[in-house]
Amino acid sequence: MQLGFASAILPDLSLEEVTAFAQAEGFACVELMCWPKGKAERRYAGVTHIEVTTLTKAMAEEIQGRLSKAGVSISGLGYYPNLLAPDAAEAEVCLEHLKQVMRAASLLGVTVVNTFVGRDWTKSVEENWPRFREVWKPLVGFAEDTGVRVGIENCPMLFTDDEWPGGKNLACTPAIWRRMFEEIPSSSFGLNYDPSHLVWQQIDYTEPLWEFADRIFHVHAKDCRVDQRRLNQVGVLATPLEYHTPKLPGLGDVDWGRFLSVLTDVGYQGPVCIEVEDRAYEGSLELRKASLRQSARYLRQYLP
Amino acid sequence: MQLGFASAILPDLSLEEVTAFAQAEGFACVELMCWPKGKAERRYAGVTHIEVTTLTKAMAEEIQGRLSKAGVSISGLGYYPNLLAPDAAEAEVCLEHLKQVMRAASLLGVTVVNTFVGRDWTKSVEENWPRFREVWKPLVGFAEDTGVRVGIENCPMLFTDDEWPGGKNLACTPAIWRRMFEEIPSSSFGLNYDPSHLVWQQIDYTEPLWEFADRIFHVHAKDCRVDQRRLNQVGVLATPLEYHTPKLPGLGDVDWGRFLSVLTDVGYQGPVCIEVEDRAYEGSLELRKASLRQSARYLRQYLP
Amino acid sequence: MQLGFASAILPDLSLEEVTAFAQAEGFACVELMCWPKGKAERRYAGVTHIEVTTLTKAMAEEIQGRLSKAGVSISGLGYYPNLLAPDAAEAEVCLEHLKQVMRAASLLGVTVVNTFVGRDWTKSVEENWPRFREVWKPLVGFAEDTGVRVGIENCPMLFTDDEWPGGKNLACTPAIWRRMFEEIPSSSFGLNYDPSHLVWQQIDYTEPLWEFADRIFHVHAKDCRVDQRRLNQVGVLATPLEYHTPKLPGLGDVDWGRFLSVLTDVGYQGPVCIEVEDRAYEGSLELRKASLRQSARYLRQYLP
Amino acid sequence: MQLGFASAILPDLSLEEVTAFAQAEGFACVELMCWPKGKAERRYAGVTHIEVTTLTKAMAEEIQGRLSKAGVSISGLGYYPNLLAPDAAEAEVCLEHLKQVMRAASLLGVTVVNTFVGRDWTKSVEENWPRFREVWKPLVGFAEDTGVRVGIENCPMLFTDDEWPGGKNLACTPAIWRRMFEEIPSSSFGLNYDPSHLVWQQIDYTEPLWEFADRIFHVHAKDCRVDQRRLNQVGVLATPLEYHTPKLPGLGDVDWGRFLSVLTDVGYQGPVCIEVEDRAYEGSLELRKASLRQSARYLRQYLP
Amino acid sequence: MQLGFASAILPDLSLEEVTAFAQAEGFACVELMCWPKGKAERRYAGVTHIEVTTLTKAMAEEIQGRLSKAGVSISGLGYYPNLLAPDAAEAEVCLEHLKQVMRAASLLGVTVVNTFVGRDWTKSVEENWPRFREVWKPLVGFAEDTGVRVGIENCPMLFTDDEWPGGKNLACTPAIWRRMFEEIPSSSFGLNYDPSHLVWQQIDYTEPLWEFADRIFHVHAKDCRVDQRRLNQVGVLATPLEYHTPKLPGLGDVDWGRFLSVLTDVGYQGPVCIEVEDRAYEGSLELRKASLRQSARYLRQYLP
Amino acid sequence: MQLGFASAILPDLSLEEVTAFAQAEGFACVELMCWPKGKAERRYAGVTHIEVTTLTKAMAEEIQGRLSKAGVSISGLGYYPNLLAPDAAEAEVCLEHLKQVMRAASLLGVTVVNTFVGRDWTKSVEENWPRFREVWKPLVGFAEDTGVRVGIENCPMLFTDDEWPGGKNLACTPAIWRRMFEEIPSSSFGLNYDPSHLVWQQIDYTEPLWEFADRIFHVHAKDCRVDQRRLNQVGVLATPLEYHTPKLPGLGDVDWGRFLSVLTDVGYQGPVCIEVEDRAYEGSLELRKASLRQSARYLRQYLP
Repeated sequence: MQLGFASAILPDLSLEEVTAFAQAEGFACVELMCWPKGKAERRYAGVTHIEVTTLTKAMAEEIQGRLSKAGVSISGLGYYPNLLAPDAAEAEVCLEHLKQVMRAASLLGVTVVNTFVGRDWTKSVEENWPRFREVWKPLVGFAEDTGVRVGIENCPMLFTDDEWPGGKNLACTPAIWRRMFEEIPSSSFGLNYDPSHLVWQQIDYTEPLWEFADRIFHVHAKDCRVDQRRLNQVGVLATPLEYHTPKLPGLGDVDWGRFLSVLTDVGYQGPVCIEVEDRAYEGSLELRKASLRQSARYLRQYLP
Repeated sequence: MQLGFASAILPDLSLEEVTAFAQAEGFACVELMCWPKGKAERRYAGVTHIEVTTLTKAMAEEIQGRLSKAGVSISGLGYYPNLLAPDAAEAEVCLEHLKQVMRAASLLGVTVVNTFVGRDWTKSVEENWPRFREVWKPLVGFAEDTGVRVGIENCPMLFTDDEWPGGKNLACTPAIWRRMFEEIPSSSFGLNYDPSHLVWQQIDYTEPLWEFADRIFHVHAKDCRVDQRRLNQVGVLATPLEYHTPKLPGLGDVDWGRFLSVLTDVGYQGPVCIEVEDRAYEGSLELRKASLRQSARYLRQYLP
Repeated sequence: MQLGFASAILPDLSLEEVTAFAQAEGFACVELMCWPKGKAERRYAGVTHIEVTTLTKAMAEEIQGRLSKAGVSISGLGYYPNLLAPDAAEAEVCLEHLKQVMRAASLLGVTVVNTFVGRDWTKSVEENWPRFREVWKPLVGFAEDTGVRVGIENCPMLFTDDEWPGGKNLACTPAIWRRMFEEIPSSSFGLNYDPSHLVWQQIDYTEPLWEFADRIFHVHAKDCRVDQRRLNQVGVLATPLEYHTPKLPGLGDVDWGRFLSVLTDVGYQGPVCIEVEDRAYEGSLELRKASLRQSARYLRQYLP
Repeated sequence: MQLGFASAILPDLSLEEVTAFAQAEGFACVELMCWPKGKAERRYAGVTHIEVTTLTKAMAEEIQGRLSKAGVSISGLGYYPNLLAPDAAEAEVCLEHLKQVMRAASLLGVTVVNTFVGRDWTKSVEENWPRFREVWKPLVGFAEDTGVRVGIENCPMLFTDDEWPGGKNLACTPAIWRRMFEEIPSSSFGLNYDPSHLVWQQIDYTEPLWEFADRIFHVHAKDCRVDQRRLNQVGVLATPLEYHTPKLPGLGDVDWGRFLSVLTDVGYQGPVCIEVEDRAYEGSLELRKASLRQSARYLRQYLP
Repeated sequence: MQLGFASAILPDLSLEEVTAFAQAEGFACVELMCWPKGKAERRYAGVTHIEVTTLTKAMAEEIQGRLSKAGVSISGLGYYPNLLAPDAAEAEVCLEHLKQVMRAASLLGVTVVNTFVGRDWTKSVEENWPRFREVWKPLVGFAEDTGVRVGIENCPMLFTDDEWPGGKNLACTPAIWRRMFEEIPSSSFGLNYDPSHLVWQQIDYTEPLWEFADRIFHVHAKDCRVDQRRLNQVGVLATPLEYHTPKLPGLGDVDWGRFLSVLTDVGYQGPVCIEVEDRAYEGSLELRKASLRQSARYLRQYLP
Repeated sequence: MQLGFASAILPDLSLEEVTAFAQAEGFACVELMCWPKGKAERRYAGVTHIEVTTLTKAMAEEIQGRLSKAGVSISGLGYYPNLLAPDAAEAEVCLEHLKQVMRAASLLGVTVVNTFVGRDWTKSVEENWPRFREVWKPLVGFAEDTGVRVGIENCPMLFTDDEWPGGKNLACTPAIWRRMFEEIPSSSFGLNYDPSHLVWQQIDYTEPLWEFADRIFHVHAKDCRVDQRRLNQVGVLATPLEYHTPKLPGLGDVDWGRFLSVLTDVGYQGPVCIEVEDRAYEGSLELRKASLRQSARYLRQYLP
């Protein structure tokens, strides 16, 4: 496994600065964010470390050259929009950009693109299914043709009232993953596995590692803390941020020793990228850098 | 505390037969269902052991006379519709019938009427709030005038897809109860406390007993079993029956010794009515009767 | 479910006396032991409440007539020898007697015969497998022809040094049951499910109920207590009685509420027979009778 | 084991009435309180069901005759003063009365007298030790001569400020019992074992059963509930009633199945007397009677 | 948060040597002990890294100059006597010295002085209260005037017989803190929060962080291990060192990930000073230095 | 305590290379494997970092000189054969080689030789006992004469079918150690304590540290993960690798903070040698080196 981080937490740094930071701190890899240039639609979105729409083969080679000199590899390209948004036009724009990200990955020789499946959050899982099929079958085909694998992050994208009730990403439970992979069995369709989202959904986060071993393309190291004192007031039907808090690895409920223990046993040898969404560490660039250092220090005790 | 049962599980018995059964089995009280005559809109609804719309003082006295002879009291009248249903006309009909139930309680000398607050299940808690105020302030006033106390059952009424996403009853968490009683502080407005709904919402079901001690007008003894094996597949964002099963007291996760222990310490001395919604015991009238016997046998070890 | 008991704990009572006791104590059924007449080879063996070798149709009808008058049914016939004993002659004798028990069941109109699969305890599971196939394929065929179902008790029959290392019954884990039923898929081949043996093997005793729901022909209500203080001295490699003690239901580690809760949900509607092997209750006939009374009192709170 | 109760909870009943109640409710035995006539010094003290100072052989025979006719035996005589009270004169009076209780036991043919060791609560355990030796060596000698065994209840007698800091009974932990029995190894010196006091002291209440098996002369079935919510405010250095509440068996933290399971395995065959100190059940004689009924119903599921 | 240590563990080093060690090991700060010169009255007391009585403005500036050059700040000054000692003269001497420490803090520009509230350990909490008020109201006033905040460490100062029964510091539980801050609401009166003392008092050590967030002026990183095996012998009424052992962070029962997780969420941004009282690491200066290194290595995985 | 590693994981490195690696990674010591040259009989066996049969005093001095220059000490010599193998000739060869290892230790000035007691795995513990006595009494005498202490590793040597049923080393539980040391009370006979083997045997791994404190000559830092999901299929009677997996420290179920906490308190000051048997880290020399680095990084947070 290679320790890295998702670049979304460093939006104010250029790719060169991100690379330098990674090198200085001994990170082996980085997941680079590839949002369209412009205003972010939500916290942690809208970061552009590679502008995919204008990327050429030459630029790609130059980027990889510089990264290679720094001893840092790209674990994957990341772009996490809602491909099944109720507004069809909006979804179409996302779809086109995602294809651009795939194309860029191909130019860069990066094999993994991370994203969400998306969801019309006003509808039930069942009602979203026909559209999932319609959008994703051709899209996975496109990925195959482009030579990249798609890692779907298992985040429900349901935190606060504006994402209520359904959240903006279908792919949040083992039952749904199973169905997804039965519908689209392509070996280019897999997961960007983040244990923290399973914790607050109260799903065992090591059990699926055995069943979905060959679907795990990428791993996000994020943690969260469920507070029983808050749960006692609002219960599991509340919007999830009412009872849990995203935290740095080691400051939450994930047992990282156990998680990484099973991960080694199922044969995973890919990247483990720290993803920071801990508001207590977002006050300044310095603190956000410190959060990556701290997370790495914590995780390295469990990693080769 | 007096052990009784909710009559909804015996829809095929007349009031006389219900009374005879209660007497024969040593139950001290019964919560009598008072739905409008006609077809039930959902499982466990639509049972009419007292037809409130036509009840007269004389009939009320006769009923109480017969019950008294059998040594069985009425713990409360029960009618659990959706007073905040999206369809205003439907809600209005429910409201009028609930007032009839209150009137009947008054005629019968019964001090407690149990019901739901209701909810427009397509909207968030926040969005339901203005209508809650509008409907319930005058209604609690009506209850005060009629001399009855309203016990709101704390069931989210969210089990399957047709109640998704919000469920049909707002009053499901301590945070919401607190807000309800701040808005309408009347001492005639309280709870019909059922610990089972708190179990699957992962809310401590003894903690609120201290804070809401003087709001507990009635207790439902129902239980449920949360299955981690199912939760591991679907998580807490699933519709609740995907991961839990309503069961008889003793066959679920409620620790009845602890629950009734704290209940005695906060000074509760009212009825404890078994409510059966365990599908494994619904195959026949005989089995439904047996379910009440079994539940009573189980609970009596913790009751005077 | 019908509450009964296994007659092995009352070896000094005749069938008539066993029946009278069952009737007096309100038991719905009894599992009758059918060992060959003669000296018991081990504790709890050698009890003969029906002498199968000499049973005629007329005798069978008389027996059933008397039981029926007492309101007691036969939950199954029980005979638990080692059909795979290293001594082939001994095993052959057992096999012949077991066929007699099946024949007797058929005469009595009893549909279940309970037994062990047996094991050459000096050999590994793998080494026992060929002989299992050889003996059991025809035997299950014989059961089918005779119209009885065979309920294999899931006891490892490994308690003390004389059964070391392998125990005298292969059929002790879900992995082995799965293999058994794959090899011999006959619907006449199932389990006499006893949760206590799973407890000390540290196997979840509710999980298999879902998978093997249609294989559960009979249930034994026995309990056991694992003592961590003893386990801390000898570990799980010791002979099992060094760290656990068979106990009456309610005096051990089985959570009977949970066990019977799941059992109702998987649709089991057969007998639940108390099996007593608690040495603290074996001092006298009176105490052994009391152990059945106490166990019934305990279990009835969870049973219709 | 024989189920009984301590008569202190029925101070308003005469011995005849206590006996009648025991008979009617199926209790096998009663521990009879033998305080000196007069005002009680504390709650649950001062009850006199046998006036020992004036008891004659003839009266003793008459009492036993009546009890025997009712099928009720005396499990022990109870008198729980502070034999090591700071006020020497007060202690001396207690000592003399306790000898009278022993004499009465002898007249009645009762073999067990239950009491406390006592403590000067203003002093440490160590500082109390010399006086313990001085008082108890001759007293146990007296008991031997009188033919009775002394069962020391393991209650710290520390609940509220007036017993702070040391409590009024030394004999509250296994470490102290061990020392007591090393100093005074007489087989007439043992325990009246009450698991509830070990619960709130956070001592395993089954572990000592093995070591002290032959010292257990009598068992009190009392329970208590430790509230973590209260402990979180005041900690274990508070006076104990600030964080725990004495409760009826089944309404507290004792696992009675486990406790009685081990008790059977260590060979205990004596009385198990319900002791009620649950304030929620003290409002009236009727309620106190009901508390004994409820406790018995609960415990009988674990007793022959 | 800034990682530092309490200088009491390095009594044999001069302030210069302490500073050099802190710098070499990368500590950001040190809590400097300011006991009066002379013999220590108890273990961990009597250390003087700043002699406050003779400190001048010039000396203070020189000290801060040297520390500043080393990149080490003073997290607070520490002096932990018993201001409520039974001997009034002794208490008065402590009070005067504490004022000197405050004066010194002011000269040094250090804003926090850490100490105990003290207690007459022979008296109950209630009995100590009037004197608490009498001593502390003016003292907090003095602190306000001097421009320092007082951080009260939450240690009961009850470990062995000589501190029995009450311990030498009242301020050991949330209930008492609440009362303290109600009596003296000054924003200069707060806590030097040490989770380890809450662990063995069995108080949740994260819960109070929410309520007392703005009262936490300083944090001690100490740990302890409660041994159930010892607790099983002596119970919670024993003197606390009979059942627990102070240990380095990571070698005890504190879940530091969780503790520091909540601490970040309540907004704490002050010092976290390792306090060593682990006797297994006190054999030599080298070992005591190693204990600080080990503790820092452990804690840094959870700190920025 | 000194952190080191067992050299068996680096079979492809020469002693010089092992030393260089230890020095470079900051290890204080190494347990050097001393198998006879030749083919390994099982995984992790057959490694020869010191060829004991040909070692001379001069060679020993040279080796120690080089190690000393590197700042690395020898924690012990390791050779783990089956001295009680059923094949007497094989056992004799092992015995002779073990004596050579002891002789070599003496030449090197190393005081500890680590090994197994051995076992005829086809026989029960009891049946092995006479031979244990016969072999080990003289052997411990030989060790005493040679001036070395023998550290017996507490591994059952039972993982897969070929070691079934008894395993190849008797010395696997506290009960057996107690018996061993009663039979051979020599202070040269002790343990090479590895907590991981106790974990999967379900034995508390801190409890024995108190009782056997002066018998702990050496410590192996190995970990393992017990999978309840696998245990649920096969139970504790399966061969142990069916339900557990050896893992690096931190990736298993050992609570190293607690283990090393108690170890410091019982006064252990010897070596703690990482032993790697985690198959996920055995793919290459680089990975095996990385496994030692990772384990050290993990353990150092708990070590001086």
